Order: sequence, then C-alpha cells, then structure tokens
Amino acid sequence: MTHSSRFLSALARQPVDCPPVWLMRQAGRYLPEYRATREQAGSFLQLCKTPELACEVTLQPLRRFDLDAAILFADILLIADAMGLGLQMVETQGPVITQPIRSAKDLANLPHIHPEHDLAYVYQTIRLLRKELPSHIPLIGFAGSPWTVAAYLVEGRGTKEFYALRGLMYGQPDLLHALLHYLTEVTVTYLSAQVKAGAQALMLFDTWGGLLNPVHYLAFSLEYVRQITHALKALYPSLPLILYSKNGAASLEARAGTGVDALGLDWTVDIGHARQRVGQRVALQGNLDPGVLYSSPETLRKEIRAILSSFGPYPGHIFNLGHGIPLDVPPDNIKILVDTVHEG
Amino acid sequence: MTHSSRFLSALARQPVDCPPVWLMRQAGRYLPEYRATREQAGSFLQLCKTPELACEVTLQPLRRFDLDAAILFADILLIADAMGLGLQMVETQGPVITQPIRSAKDLANLPHIHPEHDLAYVYQTIRLLRKELPSHIPLIGFAGSPWTVAAYLVEGRGTKEFYALRGLMYGQPDLLHALLHYLTEVTVTYLSAQVKAGAQALMLFDTWGGLLNPVHYLAFSLEYVRQITHALKALYPSLPLILYSKNGAASLEARAGTGVDALGLDWTVDIGHARQRVGQRVALQGNLDPGVLYSSPETLRKEIRAILSSFGPYPGHIFNLGHGIPLDVPPDNIKILVDTVHEG
Repeated sequence: MTHSSRFLSALARQPVDCPPVWLMRQAGRYLPEYRATREQAGSFLQLCKTPELACEVTLQPLRRFDLDAAILFADILLIADAMGLGLQMVETQGPVITQPIRSAKDLANLPHIHPEHDLAYVYQTIRLLRKELPSHIPLIGFAGSPWTVAAYLVEGRGTKEFYALRGLMYGQPDLLHALLHYLTEVTVTYLSAQVKAGAQALMLFDTWGGLLNPVHYLAFSLEYVRQITHALKALYPSLPLILYSKNGAASLEARAGTGVDALGLDWTVDIGHARQRVGQRVALQGNLDPGVLYSSPETLRKEIRAILSSFGPYPGHIFNLGHGIPLDVPPDNIKILVDTVHEG
Repeated sequence: MTHSSRFLSALARQPVDCPPVWLMRQAGRYLPEYRATREQAGSFLQLCKTPELACEVTLQPLRRFDLDAAILFADILLIADAMGLGLQMVETQGPVITQPIRSAKDLANLPHIHPEHDLAYVYQTIRLLRKELPSHIPLIGFAGSPWTVAAYLVEGRGTKEFYALRGLMYGQPDLLHALLHYLTEVTVTYLSAQVKAGAQALMLFDTWGGLLNPVHYLAFSLEYVRQITHALKALYPSLPLILYSKNGAASLEARAGTGVDALGLDWTVDIGHARQRVGQRVALQGNLDPGVLYSSPETLRKEIRAILSSFGPYPGHIFNLGHGIPLDVPPDNIKILVDTVHEG
C-alpha cells in the first residue's frame, strides 16, 4: 500500500521525500484569524459546536503554513459536555466540570450518551472538512484516553496533583475502573463515528498518564487504550492510530505494544533514544520543546535539526511539538519550523 | 562511623533495625495544631520568619508520630524574599514573585544578599530546634536547586508549562546560566550556614528538573547541583546530601553521579527498579504516592509494604512520600504510615 500523503506514509513507516509535519494546537490563539473567529463564535465551546466555524479554524493554519495534516478542531472534554456534567471553559483556568464524578451514585447517574446524536456537530465539522481539504492533506480525528478524560471528570478541573483522582484510585479502584470502562465504550463509539464521517487517522491524548507509576499506568490507563485500539482496528484494520502521552518515557515499550501505529512524544525524551527502544514497531511523532518557539530563527532551526538528526535517516518520523503550540508565540516562527522540517 | 540515628545510618547505607521514615511537608496544614500556629503568625511568610513559631511547627509532627528526622520549617523561595523580589504566598495559587527576572537589567539589579544576615531567622530557627530535638532525631536543612528557584524567579509563579523560563533557556541561555551561577553561589552560602547553625543533613529540591530533556537537564540543572554538592562536601566531608526530583526517572544514574548521598524519588518510579539502576552508590528516599493517604488503613498498609518489598532487604532506604503531604489528609493515616514502616 502506498499513500499520496507524507503523513500517512510516515505513519506506515514507509519512505517519504521529506519528514511530514503538523503541530498540536496548530489551530489556536497564536493566530489572529483564530482569535477573530473565536470572538465571532462567542466562546470556545460555541466555536467547537458550530461546524462552519470549527471547520474554518481547522483550515486557518493550513492556509499559512505547508502543514502535512489537519486536525479536527474539538476538545477532549466535549463528551463531558454531551453527558451534561456542566463543562465550562474558564479563560485563565482551563476546563471546569461543575458536577464531578466521585461516588457510585454519580457514576450511576451518568447518562448513556449516543455520540452520533449528542455530538453530531463534531461529525458535521468532519464532513465539511473533508470537502474542503485537498486529497494529500489527511484529517486527524481524536479523543482523550479514558484515564485522561476521567482525570477531569473526577477532579472537576486540571490541577497540579489530581488528588481527588488519585485518592479515588486507591480508595475505590472498582468505581474508577467502572468509569474507565464506561469511557472506553463511549470513546470507541465516538471515534468510530469520526472515521465514518471522514477522519483518516486518529489520535488518543493520554496527557495525564504520567501521573501514574508504571504498574498503575498499565492497569488504569494503557489497558483501556489497548481495548480502544483493538476495537477500532477490528472495525477499520488499516486505520492509523497515534497515542500521545506526557511524561511517559518510562512506559515507551509498553505503549508501543498496545497496537497503535505511532507514539506521540513529549519534549523531555531524546527521540533518537526512543527510536532505539521501540525500533520499527511504531512510528514516532514529536518532539520539539514548544519553548523554542520563543527564541530566534537560528536557535529554532538548530533545535529542529537536532531532532531530525537524533531520529536519523529512518522511516517513521512525523515531526511535531512535544506539546501544543503556546498561545502567544509569533506565527512567523511556525512558518520557519514547517519549512525547516521540509528542508530536512 | 556509626550513627545513633536510623536516618543518618540509612543515608550512609549502613544496616538499621527498621527503615527510617520522615515525610516531606510533615509540618503542614493537615495538622490542626499547625493551622493554629499559622493563624497566630498571621501569614505563611511570618511563620517562616518567627523562629519560635517555625521551631514549634517543625516539632509538632514529631510529638504525634514516631518520625526519624525533623526538617526545618522554611521555603525554597525565602531567598527570593531576601533579594527583595516581592515574594507573596497566595493562598490558592502558591508563590508569586512580583518582580520576575527576565532581562540582563533585572539580573544586574539583583542584590548580592548575605544569607547569614538577610536570612538570620532561618539560622535562629535551626539553633532553637537543635536545643529542642532529642539527639537521635537529626535536623534536615534544605534549599531549592538553582534551576527550580530560577523557575519561579523567571516565571514569577508556578505554572503548568513555565514557558517564560523555557523561552529564556532557548532565547538567552547565557542570561539564564548567569542567574543559575548566581543562585549556586547564594545556595552554597545559605546551606553552609545552615550546617554551621546545626543542620545535620541537607536536601536539595529540584522539583522542576523534570521540565527538561536529558541534555538540558544536565546543563541547566544537574551541573549546578554538582557544583553545590562539591562545594559543600569540601567544607563538610561527612555531611549527607539528598537530591529530590519530580519526573526525574530518566536521569537517575546521572543524579547518582553528582556526589549526593541519596536520591529522593517521586511516586511514579518503581523503587526496586531504581535501586537496581543505582546500586549502592546512593541511598534512596521515597516513594509512596501521597494519594494513598486518602484511602483505607488496609490499602495504605498494602501500598507501604509493596514499596518496602520492592526495595528489598538492602541498606540505604529512607521511607518517605513521593511528594509532600497534601493539606487535607487525615492525621491518623500518617500515624498508620509511620508505624507500618517501622514494623517493616
């Protein structure tokens, strides 16, 4: 099988003319045109829920930069909104869930949502995007991992420590497993409908996996990622899946064994060492420190080349940041980044 | 050399009758008597600056629990206060520095503080404590690592990403190195005066070392830890030093090579694997997940025994949490923890 897209070829560990590149949060506040559309929508959630505008902000970075993939504009907590848990996006604070899940009663009261109906706007955005995107630019769909979504559902917000979550893990592990099981089922339905609507690759964000020790990581996070991967691969055998984690260096081999096609690395890992550890089992996506985007063009080019050189002349590298684009970096630096990667 | 203290013996990798235990933030808000003394002082900073009250809160947990060491009640940012940078402790937010260091001018304006004079209250607290503490309970002094203190000085507050810091690292590395060099000098003076006043062991908190990739970690954090360690060991050859890091699993061997006597581990590492990696070069301190303190006595005992068993029957284990005691755990669980460790 060959692909007309660099991104899909690299995911399949096939040779490419130059490394593909896309960037987490490439549609975001660092772009003035994003801020204008966000203003027009009225709120972040309304922007997600208005397919025409969500489509527009997804396309904006592709008009400016020679990116090799588009990623659906959405949020990993839209399913919490669909569940009626009172999701709010608070400007300085991030997501807040006004009705967190902390007890068996809270869990029993969770509605069984039907993503195709309750998150219809997501699929409409995907369909619009597939009409707009050129054929060589694949569209990535995504969801949070059950552990990472549960982190917010239990804690009610992003915190440094997530002690409500970690307390529940030790105090009532069965309750947490029941929640994770429920989220796994919802996530499979949510993602497979994204594929039906037109997503050509999927990404799972296991952002908070790094909160766990290796044993708990396997039991509370990776096991559910594995279930989702197997369910989706049974439905769509050639669908590429990417698994992103933060602070997940210790479990690189375990993550490579879940059945996903690629691992997204944060910036704290040397990508060359990571490649030696996982070999050709998976492609690797990453892993420039977004902090470099605040520096000079020279430093930016030097750090990009260091990553390309560390990965080495092997197939299976998708260039990306190690975390999302910060909200206040100069857009010109994104152009330098994309062009430098393509120069190789 | 033999020690009358379990804690010092374990630091020297000598056999002990049972594992010593102390807990990061053992003097803290989870204790009602701490909250009363804090109230009396008026503020957290005033509590640090009033030797009688700082001594009192240091001793409080030792009256309740059979702990094997005391740790000076202070804060890693007291040196920022001594520098006149406008340190404030904001209840819901943590430390805020109203005049962060972001430019060569900011750095040039930093006063050359004299810890023995400007932080005299710290040494007075240590002298009081040494009068009060029984001879078998050593007193631990501490400071932040230059990188971790610089993180707050540059960023102005604790954030999830520390992008001002990481931007400075890429954009003006020489400026950051100059700040780290200055902090290294201050820290050596600050800590050696703690030893002169009576501290019997020292701990360096490199809490934010995990923000860095391995190459930057060596250059911007560990190199300055090494300099501090060598300077202090030259002054006090038998003084034990402990280096704590969060998310530092990747650099365990490098940290063991800095000359410190022990590594403090966070809860995300398997302590048995860590011991295999560093051998007998250093003692290990840690690493119970503070989240366990919210669960039942049975779970707490099970998780404690799992750590003791993972470390195995070797000298050189100081039991501790992988992070500080959360502010709202039941004090009864701390008693169970300490007693369970001593039962072995």
